[in-house]
Amino acid sequence: MKKAAIIMGSDSDLKVMSAAAGVLEDYGIPYEVHIYSAHRTPEETAAFAAAAKDNGFGVIIAGAGMSAALAGVLAAHTVLPVIGVPLKSSVFDGMDALLSTVMMPPGIPVASVAVNGAKNAAHLAAQILAVGDEALAEKIASVKKAQKEAVLQKDASVMEKMKEYR
Amino acid sequence: MKKAAIIMGSDSDLKVMSAAAGVLEDYGIPYEVHIYSAHRTPEETAAFAAAAKDNGFGVIIAGAGMSAALAGVLAAHTVLPVIGVPLKSSVFDGMDALLSTVMMPPGIPVASVAVNGAKNAAHLAAQILAVGDEALAEKIASVKKAQKEAVLQKDASVMEKMKEYR
Amino acid sequence: MKKAAIIMGSDSDLKVMSAAAGVLEDYGIPYEVHIYSAHRTPEETAAFAAAAKDNGFGVIIAGAGMSAALAGVLAAHTVLPVIGVPLKSSVFDGMDALLSTVMMPPGIPVASVAVNGAKNAAHLAAQILAVGDEALAEKIASVKKAQKEAVLQKDASVMEKMKEYR
Amino acid sequence: MKKAAIIMGSDSDLKVMSAAAGVLEDYGIPYEVHIYSAHRTPEETAAFAAAAKDNGFGVIIAGAGMSAALAGVLAAHTVLPVIGVPLKSSVFDGMDALLSTVMMPPGIPVASVAVNGAKNAAHLAAQILAVGDEALAEKIASVKKAQKEAVLQKDASVMEKMKEYR
Amino acid sequence: MKKAAIIMGSDSDLKVMSAAAGVLEDYGIPYEVHIYSAHRTPEETAAFAAAAKDNGFGVIIAGAGMSAALAGVLAAHTVLPVIGVPLKSSVFDGMDALLSTVMMPPGIPVASVAVNGAKNAAHLAAQILAVGDEALAEKIASVKKAQKEAVLQKDASVMEKMKEYR
Amino acid sequence: MKKAAIIMGSDSDLKVMSAAAGVLEDYGIPYEVHIYSAHRTPEETAAFAAAAKDNGFGVIIAGAGMSAALAGVLAAHTVLPVIGVPLKSSVFDGMDALLSTVMMPPGIPVASVAVNGAKNAAHLAAQILAVGDEALAEKIASVKKAQKEAVLQKDASVMEKMKEYR
Amino acid sequence: MKKAAIIMGSDSDLKVMSAAAGVLEDYGIPYEVHIYSAHRTPEETAAFAAAAKDNGFGVIIAGAGMSAALAGVLAAHTVLPVIGVPLKSSVFDGMDALLSTVMMPPGIPVASVAVNGAKNAAHLAAQILAVGDEALAEKIASVKKAQKEAVLQKDASVMEKMKEYR
Amino acid sequence: MKKAAIIMGSDSDLKVMSAAAGVLEDYGIPYEVHIYSAHRTPEETAAFAAAAKDNGFGVIIAGAGMSAALAGVLAAHTVLPVIGVPLKSSVFDGMDALLSTVMMPPGIPVASVAVNGAKNAAHLAAQILAVGDEALAEKIASVKKAQKEAVLQKDASVMEKMKEYR
Repeated sequence: MKKAAIIMGSDSDLKVMSAAAGVLEDYGIPYEVHIYSAHRTPEETAAFAAAAKDNGFGVIIAGAGMSAALAGVLAAHTVLPVIGVPLKSSVFDGMDALLSTVMMPPGIPVASVAVNGAKNAAHLAAQILAVGDEALAEKIASVKKAQKEAVLQKDASVMEKMKEYR
Repeated sequence: MKKAAIIMGSDSDLKVMSAAAGVLEDYGIPYEVHIYSAHRTPEETAAFAAAAKDNGFGVIIAGAGMSAALAGVLAAHTVLPVIGVPLKSSVFDGMDALLSTVMMPPGIPVASVAVNGAKNAAHLAAQILAVGDEALAEKIASVKKAQKEAVLQKDASVMEKMKEYR
Repeated sequence: MKKAAIIMGSDSDLKVMSAAAGVLEDYGIPYEVHIYSAHRTPEETAAFAAAAKDNGFGVIIAGAGMSAALAGVLAAHTVLPVIGVPLKSSVFDGMDALLSTVMMPPGIPVASVAVNGAKNAAHLAAQILAVGDEALAEKIASVKKAQKEAVLQKDASVMEKMKEYR
Repeated sequence: MKKAAIIMGSDSDLKVMSAAAGVLEDYGIPYEVHIYSAHRTPEETAAFAAAAKDNGFGVIIAGAGMSAALAGVLAAHTVLPVIGVPLKSSVFDGMDALLSTVMMPPGIPVASVAVNGAKNAAHLAAQILAVGDEALAEKIASVKKAQKEAVLQKDASVMEKMKEYR
Repeated sequence: MKKAAIIMGSDSDLKVMSAAAGVLEDYGIPYEVHIYSAHRTPEETAAFAAAAKDNGFGVIIAGAGMSAALAGVLAAHTVLPVIGVPLKSSVFDGMDALLSTVMMPPGIPVASVAVNGAKNAAHLAAQILAVGDEALAEKIASVKKAQKEAVLQKDASVMEKMKEYR
Repeated sequence: MKKAAIIMGSDSDLKVMSAAAGVLEDYGIPYEVHIYSAHRTPEETAAFAAAAKDNGFGVIIAGAGMSAALAGVLAAHTVLPVIGVPLKSSVFDGMDALLSTVMMPPGIPVASVAVNGAKNAAHLAAQILAVGDEALAEKIASVKKAQKEAVLQKDASVMEKMKEYR
Repeated sequence: MKKAAIIMGSDSDLKVMSAAAGVLEDYGIPYEVHIYSAHRTPEETAAFAAAAKDNGFGVIIAGAGMSAALAGVLAAHTVLPVIGVPLKSSVFDGMDALLSTVMMPPGIPVASVAVNGAKNAAHLAAQILAVGDEALAEKIASVKKAQKEAVLQKDASVMEKMKEYR
Repeated sequence: MKKAAIIMGSDSDLKVMSAAAGVLEDYGIPYEVHIYSAHRTPEETAAFAAAAKDNGFGVIIAGAGMSAALAGVLAAHTVLPVIGVPLKSSVFDGMDALLSTVMMPPGIPVASVAVNGAKNAAHLAAQILAVGDEALAEKIASVKKAQKEAVLQKDASVMEKMKEYR
């Protein structure tokens, strides 16, 4: 099975990005985590992306804040799909990172998810890997079904729960 | 080979979204185009998404403007990766569509590209389909190489071209 | 008397949305509360909306955050007026939910109130139900009169109260 | 049958707001159009709203741009539901009008539609009047059905139409 | 000497707006404080503004948040200069109130100061009253001189103070 | 009678700012127009402001775009009220100029009007000068009355005029 | 004398960026222009930056739109000061490029100028090169003096020119 | 060696701006810190800038919040490069200060760094001073190398560290 990579620019991003690892583990998808910075370790970032396909990766998740160049720089060096997670920093609620991540020029796409959307990045990575993996596709379908059940159960007891807030 | 779907909410979106079809054709990826509206034909939208995998699709591209619910509604009914193209409408430069597209709740990801980024949606679709298709991956690599060559050629003549603007 | 429905996408929205229930109770308007998610339980959401009128509802209140598709999806399946409450989530102060809620395409309107405006959603629901209900209209008028009295009383003692802040 | 009112602050708003009149006519809903300004004719604005219910109105549509106080001022003087249409002016794409319209304080709701959403204001007005009017509700349902048919027809010919853009 | 009025829509605004009273007291300018709401007590708001000039007021300060109609509604009923203080509420950092306050249509100006800028509203009120009052003008000049001295003194000891942060 | 000053940073601002001159003329208020730039002619800007009161001015209107420092710099050198007109430039619709103009620190207020609100700046200047000038106050009251009449006349013929747009 | 570099991501940026070349020529600063793309020719971009100091450059100007990674990527590979020019593209008025350019992480600064501020980028480049070049510093001072004279001359004739707009 | 100046408008800015002093000390660059306010001590601000070059300064760092005129006013009076640090205040996350700092008119550039980017302002100042100082350039290169090493070390232990968050 192809691996997923979770790349982030700083270990201060681990708190948010580790949620992606959790989702990948639930799906049984092998993964590696790396700290590469588009601005501080540009050569290592480029080298990782350039070799990722040959090293058995099928998809790359990149989390970065502020002028979030990481996902785009990775995408510049690989044909693998790159998923960008714009991270919220101390100002602008992550709007800077969102625009930096999503507004890529033609030819070098990045698949952006929501600000701090590390979980969805992993779900999306799973859906991408599942395009050629029926077993994984079924696992995703059952996760979605479980989500649905959880909502339906909450609906069943909502009148009770609402009393807590009245 | 798995097909790509290009879905849009209105035929007024064709001008922008047809660029995605062009890129898919260049890659030799089979595709279908449909007009489904999350708000006007919700049943047909849901039915298409629910059957897409069994009908041979591997990835779905969805373009919508304003309160762009289309990509999310498709994603709700399928395990295929869904790529959202936020479309610029008459106000807010597509910021409404970008936020509606990208800010999905955990469990139901949408891969957002730039506002009006129909071309990149198709490039991303190709990269996703190429995860399990080495020939397509090589085609993408050669397209990226051609992009690079085009930039290098422009660099070679930039001093000449700049004179036009002085 | 026709019922009001209060729908939300997650029970984490109960804290804000329960304020709508409080206002409806003050007006004596019967209501139901449900957890339906446009993305996690799309079929149940659609089914509720499609049957709401026949089930005795006169108006639907829908609260959702982020890519707030819920109100629009409900509106797609009913001719009842749908009131959207954009909910503030962890980023963007609810601007994402506001734009997702209010920027609906022609033909499928959603009546948006302020971010986290659950109370006003219920006041608006009451005003809508009161169009054909003179007793309810009188109750609303007396609530507005009471609001006015409260402001006038605060004005009478404002010089005293200001001293607390000096 | 109860009437709808279409109020705007200036006759320069007629170009956008006349679309609301068109929709109301299609539904066969009687209506009046007035120019009242919250800032230039505040007494007349207040007087109209205060008497609107007794004068046979069931719903009020108010279109205004910039610091769009009109809908809120009307709502302050009536128990009828007031629908606000934020109008795009020369700067900010109507974001100023949207926030002025939608961010109402508790107790005085305004039902905001999209920027320049005059058509949807009228559709919403119809849905509000239809709460107590089964014939109107059926008319709205058939309009929604016709919208659906139009989308489905466009879907049927979309591959043909797309060729125009290639 | 003409009086200044400090009007706010709710006593929850007192915390911020009382700073204006403090500045007026420092200048020795007589003032009144009132709670009037553009939406909850529109008649009283209008009546106050209409009579303000005859009642000895020379300038009106109005603080309001969200859809901040208060300053504009006061301005609609008087020829006195009206200073608007946009107040920060729970979302949007007061951008809603700023746009509602400042984007007034031609003919009915409001003098907007910064979000939560109650102090500057009072300084501005003083400067307006000082146009015809030389003694007040001199008092303002000496306040500005004192501000200057304070900055210069801080500059003299800044190297010392900076050590606290190193 | 005290004079008004109209200052702008560049003669490219004349197109918008000349509207202020027109309003002042209608009121019969004497005025001067100057091109002073906070960044290109800072000494002249400071010198003008410092001497403005002694030179017979009662109020200063300052129009500037982008990083609109002009009004604040003038305010730093005078006790006269300074009215800032944020000007729309090629990007951001004047939001940059609005924030630069209105977000002044405590002690140095600027009275901001709307983006490109040159007319309202002049109306506000008139209202400020009228605090100590009964004849001017009456003139302003009659202008407001004429505005009202104009709106009422437009209301009388609105149904006719709307037909042009149908 | 050290050279300046003007780098841009696409020849479609030449129209705006050529203004920087004009200013550099006026100062007599030698320069080179190149088309390098952070995403399409990342290796060439990195190689240019890494060798720029040894190749006689003293400062780098980088213009890019959308997810403007160019200036940051150049800054990652050099100790030369890098000036970023955020370029306006088809949406968001260049806010995406501004945030991508200016919000750099600690240690890798980019000196951002205004959106489309190619001229100021060149003025800033000149000021940087002038830190160690007295003759250039004098030239810059005389340019600033000429700017001042131009404003003062415009001031002298402003009353005449304003008549064109009345 | 030329000195750097760190100027701020208020000693409440010291907490953020002292980080710039720390970076300068690490580089061994002599510096002075001053409190000058564009609005409260405009003459001293102008005088400092006008004399800075003759007083041995090579670069000026200016930190200011809200309507951040400080960097621009300094730039108006000197040919030295001026680096602006937009400071976050109580509203708008520093967007007001960013736009005020960066949107300078042609001819008077300010080099803006990120909101609260005091460290990068000092790094940029060092890079500017290093254009004519090979020893400083080498020091900067070694700091960048150390940054790189730090990231690489974090990468080596990231899998361990991530466990803390799971």
